[in-house]
Amino acid sequence: MGKTKKVQESEVVMTEMVLPNDTNTLDNLMGGKLMHWLDVVGAIAAQKHSNRIVVTASADSISFKHPIALGNVVTLKAQVTRSFNSSMEVYIEVWAEDIPANKKTKTHRAFFTFVAVDQNGRPIEVPKLEPTTDEEKELFDGALRRRQLRLVLSKRMDPKDAVELKSIFGLEEALGAKKK
Amino acid sequence: MGKTKKVQESEVVMTEMVLPNDTNTLDNLMGGKLMHWLDVVGAIAAQKHSNRIVVTASADSISFKHPIALGNVVTLKAQVTRSFNSSMEVYIEVWAEDIPANKKTKTHRAFFTFVAVDQNGRPIEVPKLEPTTDEEKELFDGALRRRQLRLVLSKRMDPKDAVELKSIFGLEEALGAKKK
Amino acid sequence: MGKTKKVQESEVVMTEMVLPNDTNTLDNLMGGKLMHWLDVVGAIAAQKHSNRIVVTASADSISFKHPIALGNVVTLKAQVTRSFNSSMEVYIEVWAEDIPANKKTKTHRAFFTFVAVDQNGRPIEVPKLEPTTDEEKELFDGALRRRQLRLVLSKRMDPKDAVELKSIFGLEEALGAKKK
Amino acid sequence: MGKTKKVQESEVVMTEMVLPNDTNTLDNLMGGKLMHWLDVVGAIAAQKHSNRIVVTASADSISFKHPIALGNVVTLKAQVTRSFNSSMEVYIEVWAEDIPANKKTKTHRAFFTFVAVDQNGRPIEVPKLEPTTDEEKELFDGALRRRQLRLVLSKRMDPKDAVELKSIFGLEEALGAKKK
Amino acid sequence: MGKTKKVQESEVVMTEMVLPNDTNTLDNLMGGKLMHWLDVVGAIAAQKHSNRIVVTASADSISFKHPIALGNVVTLKAQVTRSFNSSMEVYIEVWAEDIPANKKTKTHRAFFTFVAVDQNGRPIEVPKLEPTTDEEKELFDGALRRRQLRLVLSKRMDPKDAVELKSIFGLEEALGAKKK
Amino acid sequence: MGKTKKVQESEVVMTEMVLPNDTNTLDNLMGGKLMHWLDVVGAIAAQKHSNRIVVTASADSISFKHPIALGNVVTLKAQVTRSFNSSMEVYIEVWAEDIPANKKTKTHRAFFTFVAVDQNGRPIEVPKLEPTTDEEKELFDGALRRRQLRLVLSKRMDPKDAVELKSIFGLEEALGAKKK
Repeated sequence: MGKTKKVQESEVVMTEMVLPNDTNTLDNLMGGKLMHWLDVVGAIAAQKHSNRIVVTASADSISFKHPIALGNVVTLKAQVTRSFNSSMEVYIEVWAEDIPANKKTKTHRAFFTFVAVDQNGRPIEVPKLEPTTDEEKELFDGALRRRQLRLVLSKRMDPKDAVELKSIFGLEEALGAKKK
Repeated sequence: MGKTKKVQESEVVMTEMVLPNDTNTLDNLMGGKLMHWLDVVGAIAAQKHSNRIVVTASADSISFKHPIALGNVVTLKAQVTRSFNSSMEVYIEVWAEDIPANKKTKTHRAFFTFVAVDQNGRPIEVPKLEPTTDEEKELFDGALRRRQLRLVLSKRMDPKDAVELKSIFGLEEALGAKKK
Repeated sequence: MGKTKKVQESEVVMTEMVLPNDTNTLDNLMGGKLMHWLDVVGAIAAQKHSNRIVVTASADSISFKHPIALGNVVTLKAQVTRSFNSSMEVYIEVWAEDIPANKKTKTHRAFFTFVAVDQNGRPIEVPKLEPTTDEEKELFDGALRRRQLRLVLSKRMDPKDAVELKSIFGLEEALGAKKK
Repeated sequence: MGKTKKVQESEVVMTEMVLPNDTNTLDNLMGGKLMHWLDVVGAIAAQKHSNRIVVTASADSISFKHPIALGNVVTLKAQVTRSFNSSMEVYIEVWAEDIPANKKTKTHRAFFTFVAVDQNGRPIEVPKLEPTTDEEKELFDGALRRRQLRLVLSKRMDPKDAVELKSIFGLEEALGAKKK
Repeated sequence: MGKTKKVQESEVVMTEMVLPNDTNTLDNLMGGKLMHWLDVVGAIAAQKHSNRIVVTASADSISFKHPIALGNVVTLKAQVTRSFNSSMEVYIEVWAEDIPANKKTKTHRAFFTFVAVDQNGRPIEVPKLEPTTDEEKELFDGALRRRQLRLVLSKRMDPKDAVELKSIFGLEEALGAKKK
Repeated sequence: MGKTKKVQESEVVMTEMVLPNDTNTLDNLMGGKLMHWLDVVGAIAAQKHSNRIVVTASADSISFKHPIALGNVVTLKAQVTRSFNSSMEVYIEVWAEDIPANKKTKTHRAFFTFVAVDQNGRPIEVPKLEPTTDEEKELFDGALRRRQLRLVLSKRMDPKDAVELKSIFGLEEALGAKKK
């Protein structure tokens, strides 16, 4: 498929209000509920890029530093960062907003991957992504590193072959330092 | 707190049936719903170890290789693998079962971390974990490596200091290979 | 309160997927579920304009011409069109998208009003809205007519006093025609 | 279809308890949740009149003057007021009851219309309604006016042709007053 | 409390539509979902009789002979049959209706008991019930027998003292037959 | 079917957290929600014994003595006690745990019966159960008595024929006492 698509063709914004059943004993949003929303908004972005049914392939590690309170409005923005044959990496940013207090905080950044499938669930090729802005290009380039990390972590790639991964871990420097 | 607890004191089993609203267009369980269940069962395990309110601190990367179908019974088993001051790592295994077909598959392995907090949400010390069986000890030892990986990935630790991490990535060998 | 706010300060986008429990026997989104979403997204827009807790004051009549199918992605865009002391009119547009079929349809236009209240539920003044674009100005002007219609329909205004309302019903012409 | 049906053949009573997830920050029932219930109870009334699958065609404007509190019991009574070929107007009354306080309030009156359809979603003729009591006859007569208002508001009827509508707006008088 | 109340003061009608998530693999309503509805409608009837907060004390055995299909309308009618100090027995009848097929079946009869409590959860006296019609009197009389059965089954009464219970089991006859 | 199965082949553990929407005005778990969970966990146990689709046939009477609070962790353990042609009796024990308070209480014991059916909903034979431990044997023996009680209560068996039932009610003694 020679077709390419722009990043903005896959952009999705989702808005949710934190309701009582979404919260833990401290009246903060449960992590698992947020992951559920991340998966839904990410899948829609991947659908928009591929115009296909998509299934979740992986969720990268995510840390929860900022509690999100009952009654807060949560905004999730998703966009495809890069596609690989039938898979797509999606980047999602999350903001929590206490509107009466006029306080908005960027609380999370997450990466999910999705695979486009046909009606029988078999992987199917998707359009290439063409990044335009500097931020889009940075996400596009980083996608290769993050993919290698996923493959290494799920033991499908030998770390020695993960050339791109080195820059995440500053291995180049680490190696240099050791070699001295 | 000098107290220690055994692994089995934190073991939890959760069983769920995949209902229509949990599934995507292919009638398979949505990834985000599974992550929601992982978070709930993991939090209960961490509560049982600490006898405290707990909040999710992080979810490690997870890949979704085995689709789980509508009507399947999903079993999640969680146990604390190690504690660090106020935080606990929890290991969760997931099985999906098509009971009429008599087919049970281990579909996922996941690691979450939780922090024990007091009523004001401030971190509070938890008991140490004392591993007994070989499998428990292996999970206990690995917890240190996974913790360093989390710290490096969230940029809270310099990879040079991540001594334990090396064995995950086979860095020792990589470094060895380079040095030659 | 002399403060004014721009329309874009209240803009909200909400995205929902139509799940099995949202549909009727024909596998189309139930009208009541859509109204629920309209109310939520409208309330968030009104909250953003007023930075206050808001309560729904009224929903204008709405007609359902385009069925929205199971699995469709529904996008709702809300913005405040005008404020009156403590109340705000919100305009909401709805699109339904069958992504694999690459078909997106504007399915609904709706007007809701909300009242900003303090912690005891008493109405409280909100900022004025300052429309900028031609479309915003048209919505701002129309808000007066729609407000008179609401007051007449809920028997809180005598139709004779509903000067602005006449243009909706083309009463001017009707009267003119009759007078001849 | 020469068949006629009585009003009581379509009467439905629905009772709901206001649960935490149904409420806003002030612990009052969200307007959108009430609209969802109105749609469900109205659809059942229309189904009972027509013995057909029905889809929501429109909801008339509704105002929310009485907050309904968490824990209240909400009773909705629906009945068909008149049928037109394949469409039916349904009238719904809503009471909220704080049972421990022994306080019951009529909080809402709403009009919805539904269309009976066959299995392919095509409109299909429904029985005529035969009003019996004075109240039923008044609702039956008013249905014509409300229908014209819906058509005018959705721009499917020229106000000059909306003969019945005049009595709602007291246009007769208005016109009279102007002509003097 | 010398006050008495009539049966109709506690009558409640609840109507529910069977949605996808309420059904099992055969697309029939799950028994547990029906029990949930029985508990809610029964609690409302007991609240109406006592004008108090009520808690479920027991559910009598219930058998599920008639499957209720997806899309059916389920009607539940509850009424208090008799009160004992702080507890009330509630009788509930359930009908399932396939409206397009014009088929309505009485599917279940159930008895629940509820206890009226004050804000601290302590039992509190409720009005006596005064049965009027023959059916109400029969239910009132039977309540005593059913109460003894509950007490015997939960081992809080010695069967020898369960004088009223005998007529349920035809023990009188059984004893008579044996004695011969 | 000559096949027999052990009790442990049908054992299921389900864990649930009590969320706001599961509770009544006193912040305790609603009885109907618990019955819903009992039905789900019981059905899974019966599925595991029979490797068939199962439908709920009956729920025995259940009493609610111990309130279960918001935030509690509820554990339900189910096992098949005996099978009869196509039906299975399932025994379920329920514990509620206030983990921060380190308090765990056995709150309920319940018996449900399920019938194994084929894809058309027709009853189908299930394996025999072979009890091993003393507790399993006691439950196995008691199943016959409880079955007769169900048949008598649903008027499908004449009490005179309910030989096994006598020991529940101590009828032997009662009869003996009367005969003297």
